[in-house]
Amino acid sequence: MEELKRRIREEGIVLPGQVLKVDSFLNHQIDPMLSMAMGQELAHRFSDVEIDRVLTVEASGIALGLAAAYALHVPLVFAKKSQSVLMHEDAYVADVYSYTKKVKNSILVLKKFLPPDESVLIVDDFLANGEASLGMASLVHQAGSRVAGIGIAVDKAFQRGHDRLIQEGYRLESLAVIASLEGNRVHFRESI
Amino acid sequence: MEELKRRIREEGIVLPGQVLKVDSFLNHQIDPMLSMAMGQELAHRFSDVEIDRVLTVEASGIALGLAAAYALHVPLVFAKKSQSVLMHEDAYVADVYSYTKKVKNSILVLKKFLPPDESVLIVDDFLANGEASLGMASLVHQAGSRVAGIGIAVDKAFQRGHDRLIQEGYRLESLAVIASLEGNRVHFRESI
Repeated sequence: MEELKRRIREEGIVLPGQVLKVDSFLNHQIDPMLSMAMGQELAHRFSDVEIDRVLTVEASGIALGLAAAYALHVPLVFAKKSQSVLMHEDAYVADVYSYTKKVKNSILVLKKFLPPDESVLIVDDFLANGEASLGMASLVHQAGSRVAGIGIAVDKAFQRGHDRLIQEGYRLESLAVIASLEGNRVHFRESI
Repeated sequence: MEELKRRIREEGIVLPGQVLKVDSFLNHQIDPMLSMAMGQELAHRFSDVEIDRVLTVEASGIALGLAAAYALHVPLVFAKKSQSVLMHEDAYVADVYSYTKKVKNSILVLKKFLPPDESVLIVDDFLANGEASLGMASLVHQAGSRVAGIGIAVDKAFQRGHDRLIQEGYRLESLAVIASLEGNRVHFRESI
């Protein structure tokens, strides 16, 4: 998506450790026009499949999740993060390891908001190691539903997540695919 | 806002301790059509004042914040929650006491995303004791900007927040004002 790539080129800040900051328009300050356009684009890319629901994870997935759900005219559910890994009889729970923070968190969704036999689109702002997406996919499977696909804004394809999701058989649509951050510059991959 | 009140009447669950759960459409599962309509309604109610930016707090404020910012064609910034209360030289920080969880948290916004001399609309999904709204107002004042007003989806006006915000001189626009939850039923106040 050209508009997103342009914003990443102009405003993205590359930090040591393969970190790309885009908090001026994606995950601290948010450009609502761009968010809604990204949601439209995800809806367009998945227009050939039935989608009953969008699932994302708090906090920075919510804006893109809302935009996609609005474009698709379906409900949004956001998984909540929790430090405790206790079982929760009313919720589906999955473990998500954060490589950045080196801690294991749980994400959870109340069972009543993830019904069985649905086709669920997973949405997130960033894809790095794929832990959040795979955790959300686990929630969908626990519910007895199907993953329609995974829609990502910024896909750091040089990290493990991109290949992991494809190897697991998921359909991945990323609006900006980054091949590398070498030389502290953003290099896009032209096709996913 | 009639549509919001109808949904609260039909889907809201009153729990002991003056708790109203509306997580089937507002803050776990989200109805994107309703969210966007609420954002439009807030933009309409504040159409007589200049607004440069919308400020909310993660996580459950983000959907309404995005919808309001989209309707107003201005950027959204969401404050981040932090357990630590350390000073942060790049950020404005405010303390927010949670009466539900009985803990003090900090909320913070990077200084570069809250410029001086702006008119800022504060938005949140719930108003109870007013701590989050007053914390956000503090961030705006620290930045050298003005609070244009405070826009709330569900205002539990029988708790302290509603009166505190008005006593402090803020313009408050709430889309559903709840007078009481007596008898485990939702009683709306007809005007704020």
